[in-house]
Amino acid sequence: MHVGVLTGGGDCPGLNAVIRAVTLALLADGVRVTGIERGFLGLVERRVRPLDAAAVAGILAEGGTILGTHNQANPFAWFGAGGADVSADTMAYVRELGLDALVAIGGDGTMSIAHRFERLGLPVVGVPKTIDNDIAHNERSFGFDSAVAVVAEALDRLATTARSHGRVMIAETMGRYAGWIALEGGLAGGADVILIPEQPFSVEAVAARCRANEQAGGHTLICIAEGAAARGEAMTVMRTIESSPDPIRLGGVGHWLQQRLQPLVASEVRTTLLGHVQRGGTPTAFDRVLATRFGVAAAQLVQQRRFGHMVALQGSACTAVPIADVADRNRRVPPDDELWRAAQAIGVCLGEV
Amino acid sequence: MHVGVLTGGGDCPGLNAVIRAVTLALLADGVRVTGIERGFLGLVERRVRPLDAAAVAGILAEGGTILGTHNQANPFAWFGAGGADVSADTMAYVRELGLDALVAIGGDGTMSIAHRFERLGLPVVGVPKTIDNDIAHNERSFGFDSAVAVVAEALDRLATTARSHGRVMIAETMGRYAGWIALEGGLAGGADVILIPEQPFSVEAVAARCRANEQAGGHTLICIAEGAAARGEAMTVMRTIESSPDPIRLGGVGHWLQQRLQPLVASEVRTTLLGHVQRGGTPTAFDRVLATRFGVAAAQLVQQRRFGHMVALQGSACTAVPIADVADRNRRVPPDDELWRAAQAIGVCLGEV
Amino acid sequence: MHVGVLTGGGDCPGLNAVIRAVTLALLADGVRVTGIERGFLGLVERRVRPLDAAAVAGILAEGGTILGTHNQANPFAWFGAGGADVSADTMAYVRELGLDALVAIGGDGTMSIAHRFERLGLPVVGVPKTIDNDIAHNERSFGFDSAVAVVAEALDRLATTARSHGRVMIAETMGRYAGWIALEGGLAGGADVILIPEQPFSVEAVAARCRANEQAGGHTLICIAEGAAARGEAMTVMRTIESSPDPIRLGGVGHWLQQRLQPLVASEVRTTLLGHVQRGGTPTAFDRVLATRFGVAAAQLVQQRRFGHMVALQGSACTAVPIADVADRNRRVPPDDELWRAAQAIGVCLGEV
Amino acid sequence: MHVGVLTGGGDCPGLNAVIRAVTLALLADGVRVTGIERGFLGLVERRVRPLDAAAVAGILAEGGTILGTHNQANPFAWFGAGGADVSADTMAYVRELGLDALVAIGGDGTMSIAHRFERLGLPVVGVPKTIDNDIAHNERSFGFDSAVAVVAEALDRLATTARSHGRVMIAETMGRYAGWIALEGGLAGGADVILIPEQPFSVEAVAARCRANEQAGGHTLICIAEGAAARGEAMTVMRTIESSPDPIRLGGVGHWLQQRLQPLVASEVRTTLLGHVQRGGTPTAFDRVLATRFGVAAAQLVQQRRFGHMVALQGSACTAVPIADVADRNRRVPPDDELWRAAQAIGVCLGEV
Repeated sequence: MHVGVLTGGGDCPGLNAVIRAVTLALLADGVRVTGIERGFLGLVERRVRPLDAAAVAGILAEGGTILGTHNQANPFAWFGAGGADVSADTMAYVRELGLDALVAIGGDGTMSIAHRFERLGLPVVGVPKTIDNDIAHNERSFGFDSAVAVVAEALDRLATTARSHGRVMIAETMGRYAGWIALEGGLAGGADVILIPEQPFSVEAVAARCRANEQAGGHTLICIAEGAAARGEAMTVMRTIESSPDPIRLGGVGHWLQQRLQPLVASEVRTTLLGHVQRGGTPTAFDRVLATRFGVAAAQLVQQRRFGHMVALQGSACTAVPIADVADRNRRVPPDDELWRAAQAIGVCLGEV
Repeated sequence: MHVGVLTGGGDCPGLNAVIRAVTLALLADGVRVTGIERGFLGLVERRVRPLDAAAVAGILAEGGTILGTHNQANPFAWFGAGGADVSADTMAYVRELGLDALVAIGGDGTMSIAHRFERLGLPVVGVPKTIDNDIAHNERSFGFDSAVAVVAEALDRLATTARSHGRVMIAETMGRYAGWIALEGGLAGGADVILIPEQPFSVEAVAARCRANEQAGGHTLICIAEGAAARGEAMTVMRTIESSPDPIRLGGVGHWLQQRLQPLVASEVRTTLLGHVQRGGTPTAFDRVLATRFGVAAAQLVQQRRFGHMVALQGSACTAVPIADVADRNRRVPPDDELWRAAQAIGVCLGEV
Repeated sequence: MHVGVLTGGGDCPGLNAVIRAVTLALLADGVRVTGIERGFLGLVERRVRPLDAAAVAGILAEGGTILGTHNQANPFAWFGAGGADVSADTMAYVRELGLDALVAIGGDGTMSIAHRFERLGLPVVGVPKTIDNDIAHNERSFGFDSAVAVVAEALDRLATTARSHGRVMIAETMGRYAGWIALEGGLAGGADVILIPEQPFSVEAVAARCRANEQAGGHTLICIAEGAAARGEAMTVMRTIESSPDPIRLGGVGHWLQQRLQPLVASEVRTTLLGHVQRGGTPTAFDRVLATRFGVAAAQLVQQRRFGHMVALQGSACTAVPIADVADRNRRVPPDDELWRAAQAIGVCLGEV
Repeated sequence: MHVGVLTGGGDCPGLNAVIRAVTLALLADGVRVTGIERGFLGLVERRVRPLDAAAVAGILAEGGTILGTHNQANPFAWFGAGGADVSADTMAYVRELGLDALVAIGGDGTMSIAHRFERLGLPVVGVPKTIDNDIAHNERSFGFDSAVAVVAEALDRLATTARSHGRVMIAETMGRYAGWIALEGGLAGGADVILIPEQPFSVEAVAARCRANEQAGGHTLICIAEGAAARGEAMTVMRTIESSPDPIRLGGVGHWLQQRLQPLVASEVRTTLLGHVQRGGTPTAFDRVLATRFGVAAAQLVQQRRFGHMVALQGSACTAVPIADVADRNRRVPPDDELWRAAQAIGVCLGEV
């Protein structure tokens, strides 16, 4: 048997741990493993390399992916929505390589593409990758714990400045649609205010919390997801350098909030946009273990020929769900989420009036 | 309502996060909260302090417990097996304080004592604390992730030395009866060999792995739990300084293994006993969140008057189990454990012949 | 003898280590120590607290300053350039407190104010505080190593993403006038390009390096100080939200460079503005030791009545320089700096044509 | 020109940063660079590899040495004191390779061997490597800051346990002859007691400090170098497993102190032997920069043909000293050391009566 492995979409800590585990587990079973470079780009541009024990030695703790990845390489619409369909050529290459199956490690987009290849005759096993922890039917994805750890450490750092100066410090985290990183990171970092996309916030509620802290002689730590939105207010959260063909995001909801909040409070308000450091670097121990479990589970799905499925964590068990159930859906923080209610219970301001 | 909070047994990262969450959640509900110092010792020696928002501010990220703890303070057998029963005096003090309930954060031993106080008329809610992750009916305890992270980081460090010198490096972790720390820490740190109490090991199997690595030009990283035992061999694992009234543990199974392994392999073998650093320091982000959830869940059990129960994590949900079901039992790595099988799948040597 | 201690200006890791050391060393000498809150603000608003061994216990590893600080509290120009001179009132309070001397921990601005108080009759000893490592006559200041460590760790993280995606990643660090943080942080983080205020850069030179890396199949890591400037080009580096009374900095030279660089290279270019996380959090071991040395040296200057002096590190020795020599001057990276030349020697692109 | 590079003796964080910098700086000058594997072993066993930009890419942050090292490979006394002199064969291989010079990165022993090869006609430049910071004429060596950081972090962790239990915690660090690691690590970690080889300690003085802390309601943190010795007392600090041909060190001065201290104090006393984790892992930012400077300086010595010299840090400047001045000497903590006196000034117990 001969299996290809690729990583697609944005990078995230733990990808290498998956690659290592799936490779070692397949090799132990006598399967030949080939790494495809830069996601589906490698299948189109015909860039592959053999994966053996030596190739995956020492990569467990490395961030990113040794195979490389690509955000936009879709063989069904090559580079953009109106792009050419190069899937037939791609399948020809798959047959040339003699691949019996593909392990696709990626998010929504990667799963959708993989699903289409499956219908063209390339059996696929999926491994969910989402720094935002928002893939449907999967309770926890590798990389998420690492991102939360970065946010918590940043809040630890910002807290010392906030305390020393009596300031309001705003930290803007990843999370365009799902607030998991801001919620867990904010709880772990002791944020006074946590604002997520799923719950529109009131600027006045946030200001009230800041003023209450000021009166108690303290500072305020705000953790806001990039996708959080003010209740009933039109936000112009993006500022771009106009002349740029590819506009650059300069400030987001964090800066917008700072601008609105400053006139309402006595303390100085400052914003930090955490940015790309949230998704790089060595995975936490938790993510290394989870990614290893996912890699082994993917190898087992291959061995059991349970194609068309994606590995998923449900409760504490590694299980599998049909890829078709996953594509184009995502998992958000529900109103009755236990963590959300825990935040409420300890008095974290969640932005509601 | 007036609730006491105590922490008993060995310390562990996340205790302060529990204290903070249970206090904030109870205060928000109008409950008066009193901290009892040094576990049950404080109830006997009458050392308590009020807990309010200011008292728990800024403790989320601090290791250990602001209340202090004690390993041996059992009011039913005061300092040792034949000790006096001072529980009546203790209950008198409880009534004097006007405590309506007690939140006891601790392990097996603390739960057993709490259970006996419950029968004397002090309603109790338990929060499981075990660095070893071995409390029955609770899948993951706070502090465990922090210990695993310390082990993984230590293995990362030892790996660079092992690689540079072509050595066999043995790291001995906590885990007298349950191998969870060695198993997860070993997996996260990329150990070649993981040895745990639940699976007797063969020295020859370990040596064979070391020799195979030597032939491949590599080093070997061994992660062994302090309670691991060789198959069919009497081990004299403890060396003590004889004249000491309280014998000091100098070396354990790691050193024993080094002694047996050295003649069987070509490389130098070295041992590191990780010791107390595994249980101290700031909790990981994961543990801060879990401990916060546990604290909130304990406050809710108090508010719902579901006494006699201990908070527990099952799957991904915080739930509650009767304390009576927990006392004197513990959770070990089962033969069919998913993580154990994952380790096997990627070729980790688990010591069996 | 009775000595006041204050921290002024921006916070920085190691302030608490100085406060602890100066307090313990003075106490050991029989001196009474009083902490002044929030810099010179505390002398005006009459907020002080006694400092004894208990007050400084456990603060060594804490970021920020337990005394609080203030950026703009100048008794000679109360809140801004045209502000009232309240120095006479302040001196009255100093006499009321019975302060024999003041230990002022701060930067340029704090030293200037302290110098003026000295002339009003309050003997002063200075301790240099600058996250940018740019105080004249002082080769290394506490907090700087911590900031460099944050930058290096951020570059480590960004490198994994850059490598996985084949990107150009720009990290913008602190350093408005002096490039020490970008230079040391960039070297420590393995940056391919380091741009500092002391050396105007050519966009084309940077682009050439990026293209060379692209051709070698690699990524590019750029570390740029916020004060770096393009050679011969007018930069509009600041974008603000217009309606804000206190304009918010949204993007700086890093985003400006991204905008100019993107059309010149094939890879995606992304920018991260490291922001406030560079100055918060627990100090590195190096900074804890240096800050302790500075605190002890300040106490010794007090004991020797060498007032009007500031502690300084020259070579490896703690020495003292007249405060008058320090005020309003700063230390920049000279063209023949050894580190700068080391960066050149290993082929780091420093922006010159 | 053709230059060989080797790393000898124990490993230490920053070796790869030196290898990278010396390689890049020599390559930029048109020099051919060859890496010799496992120290002088590679010259005897004829194991070398070319070093180019690709070979040293990405190794800056890696602990250990990509070239490997060996503790005992001395071509003048092959494997042990009575070993054969294989230096003539080694020189034949050197001539065969066409090496014009050797950059030897190592400690005392490596410098002595290098010095002898110099007299046989192989020009040598030395780079000092000592985790203990004890090479003569060199004020700070790479790897030392990383070891100090590990000790400080361990003390941070142990402090939380000590505080929670009211314990005396002893941490034994590296430092057989020189106490720099214990001194700086102890200061950085807030140790109450620091014991180093240069200053014999009195058990009673240590016990007195523990009792004073007990009376103040606190715990005690002791940092002791492995080479520290009790004043006027014969210590039997080593316990070995007798049957081992290569006796294993089970416990050292830390456990010895625990045994003596326990009867003299009320609290529990516990010991942690920090071991090999002190020398592994990624170097701190400080060490990455210092190692890079050392590598560049070594390349410059080669380019200037200043052979027979070793790079050295004096004050803040990289300079060079004759290797002959360095061999068989080491740098200890002098009685008037500024750091030592700083420790005294803040009341750290240094063991003297």
